[in-house]
Amino acid sequence: MKRKIYIVGIGLIGGSFALEIRNIYPQSEIIGIDESEDNLNQAIELNLIDDKSEIDKILNPDIVLIAVPVNSIITLLPKVLDRVNNDTLVLDFGSTKYSICNSVSDHVNRSSFLAAHPIAGTEFSGPMAAHVGLFKNKNIIICEEQATNKTNLKLALYIFNEMQMKVSYMDASSHDKHIAYVSHLSHLSSFMLGKTVMDEEKNEKNIFEMAGSGFESTVRLAKSSPKMWTNIFEDNKQNILKSLEDYIINLEQIKDLIQRDQFDEIELQLRSINYIKTILKGIN
Amino acid sequence: MKRKIYIVGIGLIGGSFALEIRNIYPQSEIIGIDESEDNLNQAIELNLIDDKSEIDKILNPDIVLIAVPVNSIITLLPKVLDRVNNDTLVLDFGSTKYSICNSVSDHVNRSSFLAAHPIAGTEFSGPMAAHVGLFKNKNIIICEEQATNKTNLKLALYIFNEMQMKVSYMDASSHDKHIAYVSHLSHLSSFMLGKTVMDEEKNEKNIFEMAGSGFESTVRLAKSSPKMWTNIFEDNKQNILKSLEDYIINLEQIKDLIQRDQFDEIELQLRSINYIKTILKGIN
Repeated sequence: MKRKIYIVGIGLIGGSFALEIRNIYPQSEIIGIDESEDNLNQAIELNLIDDKSEIDKILNPDIVLIAVPVNSIITLLPKVLDRVNNDTLVLDFGSTKYSICNSVSDHVNRSSFLAAHPIAGTEFSGPMAAHVGLFKNKNIIICEEQATNKTNLKLALYIFNEMQMKVSYMDASSHDKHIAYVSHLSHLSSFMLGKTVMDEEKNEKNIFEMAGSGFESTVRLAKSSPKMWTNIFEDNKQNILKSLEDYIINLEQIKDLIQRDQFDEIELQLRSINYIKTILKGIN
Repeated sequence: MKRKIYIVGIGLIGGSFALEIRNIYPQSEIIGIDESEDNLNQAIELNLIDDKSEIDKILNPDIVLIAVPVNSIITLLPKVLDRVNNDTLVLDFGSTKYSICNSVSDHVNRSSFLAAHPIAGTEFSGPMAAHVGLFKNKNIIICEEQATNKTNLKLALYIFNEMQMKVSYMDASSHDKHIAYVSHLSHLSSFMLGKTVMDEEKNEKNIFEMAGSGFESTVRLAKSSPKMWTNIFEDNKQNILKSLEDYIINLEQIKDLIQRDQFDEIELQLRSINYIKTILKGIN
């Protein structure tokens, strides 16, 4: 069966999804929509999509994936739902979920829509960064699944399973609260670490010579897309402020311990933080 | 020529050096010294060392490497220098350099000693973690080279060159100041990030499901050795407090920008921090 699949936002996530979906449905027609004409042309050249279109021209789609920054999802998702019926699966892959679910809670076609967040990505962006395997063995969190009709939920689960993803369920506001701690805070801490070191080390040569893999690892996320992340910080403002406050309090307390030469207490604390080893083993 | 080489501290760094030095001087006799009898026995089993000994029994060494935490280097280095003459090269691989250089500045055998810091390591420790290639293409910073006799400096440079390391020179107090920013601060930020998330996420399952490679990367250093790092924080206290203050100020300012909805300003800031991409390209 030939399926018509639209992908709105043909960057790292949308482009990698295109590669997966073509693998699952080799006969499908994949149509890209993107505000960047360059992205669309690149995506055609890379064979990620077969054709390009626009939101207002979406016609008889079987599946629509929206993979753009959160604020754009909130603008575009109702427009997409306006143009589909109950047989269409509309998916979003946004990094927050509460405001997105909220934006269509009263939409007549709400049951076509499934809110999902694949925990996958790199610090790179754009169609050139798209690759097979980005989603493999990664988690995908589904929110408000009870608001999606059963046929669509089943289709989405089939696709995620073919992509070898591990599915879990969470209500949208819990999702946003937890993701602030395990993802958004990491990005803030990394961006600000990069700023702190660059502000101090006006003479770059010192960084080149002295920085090792530890610095590289902690500062990697500071290479991430400013537009996408500013948007996430805005959308998830309250949860992020809370996590950032907690982080600053912990930094202040260790600063205080160092200042007061409480090194036995510091060593004890680092020992208990080492327990993160056990937790991280569960991630990969 | 058969050389007699002592390695004090036969963990990740000392053990990896043992593998390199046996490659450079296949005829050498390598003797380990370690406060842990387990480490010594493991190191013999792993063929990192040929024999074990003690500081007070060091006899006619050609080379002595001291690769233990900084406070132990300060205790042991003068004792080692007491037992050598000008023909012996004594090296330390400690993570700070000022207090180590200071501890032997008046020692009669000061010129035997070369202070060095290889920018190499992982979050793992112990002889089992030792491996060939740890030092390859990494930087090594030499401090106060003018206080080392020329023969010994030449020998050390020969060894570092054989290990394919890139040598640079820096005065000891500059070393400690810069390394606070590009290494020690990364470890503090990572430890405290781990603490913040674990404090919040009492129910670990949420972390497992939601944490991705971004969190893993920023929190990797929180797996590091508590003993070694507490010791570094103590030794480099003033520089670390300064870097930590700068970091907290930056976190407070972005918190303030988020609070006041200054998202255009945030995006501009993140864009300029993205310049770290160019800097990181120079590291690897």
